[in-house]
Amino acid sequence: MNYAMILYILGAVLKFESLFLLLPSLVGLIYGERSGLYYLGTALLCLVCGMILGHKKPEEMMLYTREGFVSVALSWLIMSVFGALPMCLCGDIPFYVDSLFETISGFTTTGASICINVEILTHATQFWRSFTHWIGGMGVFVFIMAILPMMGGSTMNLMKAESPGPSVSKLVPHVKDTAKILYGMYIALTVAEIVILIVCGMPLFDSFITTFGTVGTGGFGIKCDSIAPYSPVIQIVVTVFMILSGINYTAYFLVLCRKFKEVFGIEEVRWYLGIIVGASLIIAVNIQHIYGGWGVSLRHSFFQVASIITTTGFATADFDRWPMLSKTILVLLMFMGACAGSTGGGIKVSRLIILNRAVKKELSLIIHPREIKKIRMDGHVIEHEVLRNTNVFLVIYFLVMFASVLLISVDDFSFTTNFTAVVSAINNIGPGLDMVGPTGNFAAFSAFSKFVLMFDMLAGRLELFPILVLMLPKVWLGRDGR
Amino acid sequence: MNYAMILYILGAVLKFESLFLLLPSLVGLIYGERSGLYYLGTALLCLVCGMILGHKKPEEMMLYTREGFVSVALSWLIMSVFGALPMCLCGDIPFYVDSLFETISGFTTTGASICINVEILTHATQFWRSFTHWIGGMGVFVFIMAILPMMGGSTMNLMKAESPGPSVSKLVPHVKDTAKILYGMYIALTVAEIVILIVCGMPLFDSFITTFGTVGTGGFGIKCDSIAPYSPVIQIVVTVFMILSGINYTAYFLVLCRKFKEVFGIEEVRWYLGIIVGASLIIAVNIQHIYGGWGVSLRHSFFQVASIITTTGFATADFDRWPMLSKTILVLLMFMGACAGSTGGGIKVSRLIILNRAVKKELSLIIHPREIKKIRMDGHVIEHEVLRNTNVFLVIYFLVMFASVLLISVDDFSFTTNFTAVVSAINNIGPGLDMVGPTGNFAAFSAFSKFVLMFDMLAGRLELFPILVLMLPKVWLGRDGR
Repeated sequence: MNYAMILYILGAVLKFESLFLLLPSLVGLIYGERSGLYYLGTALLCLVCGMILGHKKPEEMMLYTREGFVSVALSWLIMSVFGALPMCLCGDIPFYVDSLFETISGFTTTGASICINVEILTHATQFWRSFTHWIGGMGVFVFIMAILPMMGGSTMNLMKAESPGPSVSKLVPHVKDTAKILYGMYIALTVAEIVILIVCGMPLFDSFITTFGTVGTGGFGIKCDSIAPYSPVIQIVVTVFMILSGINYTAYFLVLCRKFKEVFGIEEVRWYLGIIVGASLIIAVNIQHIYGGWGVSLRHSFFQVASIITTTGFATADFDRWPMLSKTILVLLMFMGACAGSTGGGIKVSRLIILNRAVKKELSLIIHPREIKKIRMDGHVIEHEVLRNTNVFLVIYFLVMFASVLLISVDDFSFTTNFTAVVSAINNIGPGLDMVGPTGNFAAFSAFSKFVLMFDMLAGRLELFPILVLMLPKVWLGRDGR
Repeated sequence: MNYAMILYILGAVLKFESLFLLLPSLVGLIYGERSGLYYLGTALLCLVCGMILGHKKPEEMMLYTREGFVSVALSWLIMSVFGALPMCLCGDIPFYVDSLFETISGFTTTGASICINVEILTHATQFWRSFTHWIGGMGVFVFIMAILPMMGGSTMNLMKAESPGPSVSKLVPHVKDTAKILYGMYIALTVAEIVILIVCGMPLFDSFITTFGTVGTGGFGIKCDSIAPYSPVIQIVVTVFMILSGINYTAYFLVLCRKFKEVFGIEEVRWYLGIIVGASLIIAVNIQHIYGGWGVSLRHSFFQVASIITTTGFATADFDRWPMLSKTILVLLMFMGACAGSTGGGIKVSRLIILNRAVKKELSLIIHPREIKKIRMDGHVIEHEVLRNTNVFLVIYFLVMFASVLLISVDDFSFTTNFTAVVSAINNIGPGLDMVGPTGNFAAFSAFSKFVLMFDMLAGRLELFPILVLMLPKVWLGRDGR
């Protein structure tokens, strides 16, 4: 294990975090809040620690897969541990376990909160919570790579560990250029939403917060009722941007390259949009008697479906009070998640397409045992290795999920609460049903259960393997078996 | 598709069912109940239909895999359709959809009931419900094969479709002899339990019913409180026989061959027993405050754990009132199920062992990418095909499960009710939580939801593939693509 390189990477991450922390300090300054000073102090602390860790450039810059996984997992942990400090110290979230939960929930773009009333937080903290969504959405390593050429030839292994989806597609030959293009598109989407929201009459601060939550598919807000207090027009704008944020960024790259025909050829995107429309229409019919009009029902159903499938977690209505059919559709969409290569979490639509085809192939083999058939997506053959990895992913996913439901059941809340809390955490969504419904929160869980859910959020965001590799004794002990 | 052969098999199944139906007629005669006549009448109907279907011996006796799957799936359907008639006609369960649900629940050894009060059923119906467990437990084809050498060389494909577990192991070279040995051991276990229960003071009729439910891992009883009204000694006897019934029958064969050392070498059995002990101890600690004494807590915890992991579904306590930790353990055990090659349902312990090792291998590959490692169980290498099949099994399993939860959510019962009802049906257990808890029943579901749950029970008992193959248009349409 290349420990020197891992420490060097952790140092770099902390230095970047110190940079990010300057923004909430600035917000604190603008609003004249004392809490801004704690953000400034933490920024300095991150800088010092980052410089200590990164003071020696390692001789060997190469990272193997497992080292990439370990670096990324540790980086996300250390970012959260430091990022939680100011929230706790300034008194906004006085217990460190809670502020760590909130920070991990932020970076992993989950948006599950332990705050009973978010409206009393200082502006600096409100800003930082939501800004962590923005950082975590596209990923901190994509950001670092876009700026620094530091990792030599081993950057792909970091990107592999941090990017969502069954396979990482490079848009252009160089990782650095890919990272730059990704962040370029991400920033463009961000700016577009902020501008449109302001035009639609949202206050400046609110539109920043809402946009971070949308494009990062996070879901933290600054109102207790999430997006419900804003006008219908704003709700529709947010719906559209949530849907856009759940799309594979490759699609936007193809748009930039003016390959419009290929965009519509991406099967995952077609399925994703089809599912959103289908699910929203069924729910609209199912909830129509509650809201009276079709317009309102459709607005709420599209908003909630988009919010859940993209794993954002905003809400315009208390869907915990909807009929069970609508609630069940939303729970199933929690598992599904958005497109691979987007900022969303979940199993991802493309994995489901692959699994669906593997099932069809297996059933077909019973009928025609000698048939030779390859599984394809977008015209390409799915490699055996991707299929195996997808299968193993699903197995681990359900193992982690069920183990977590078991562990947090010691708190003795309802089965629906526990089940949807875990599903919500592992898929980086935010709200669940019952106690953790859109109007509820995660405050009542014990510290132990909060740690379980933090683990789930990190495991979900990094797609299980990096966090699990971190826990294998084999990685840390024994001889170097590269 | 060899339609002539499939019809011939269906005829044979109906003839055997007519034989089985004579037993409840006899019970009706003994108790002087009119309902016995309806069982006799249905027996005659089965005989006539069976003779019509099987009047012509097909020229071609060979069955390919898909035809084996289709035959088995159709046989189970037709057995249930006819088996439900007398219950309905005699007025015990007046609605046909309900009696069909009860019969499928019986044959699939689920034990989920739509009866609000089972104690008012006639003895003939009580006997038939439980006897379907006994028939379905070991499987009707195993029975037919043990008696008739009718299927020529293609019997293995029928057995493959009906037997639980990732792979079918022949105990001895000939399928017919294997079937005979299996039924011999099954009958021995049955007789042993009946005798011991009578010795312990259980009435004769009750001990037959309880034994059918135990060795078939079904769970239908004749008391509203299941096994709770019986003495602690009887409860302990049933616990032991439930555990015995969940063990791979290969183990008993090894005992018969005096290969004791090999019995303890079966990894699945070791895991299975270890999980029972572990889960029971945790639950005993968790419920100790409810029952006061360790003896009572341990008796209840071991009973319920054995009942759920073997997918039997008997109860001595209303576990729906236990703390959430205990309930969650039981829900997880519902998924797990018993050993492959037993009469129990569920995913099966051996599949979980295989999946667990596949996960370890995949994680290990991240650390040592060039490592070549085979997955082994009981010293044998797990073939790539078994692993792939196990993975696909799991994917289909969760797809069917989630689709069912969605479909029955239209009835608007609680999420816990819907989720555990489906889990209970697909794993052939019986009770779930909330409305379908040990003191509840499935009566309140709509006919539509009942059909969904019937599908789940059949799909679960036949391990998904046969029932799904039945639904593929490809099987029925197009040219014969053998």
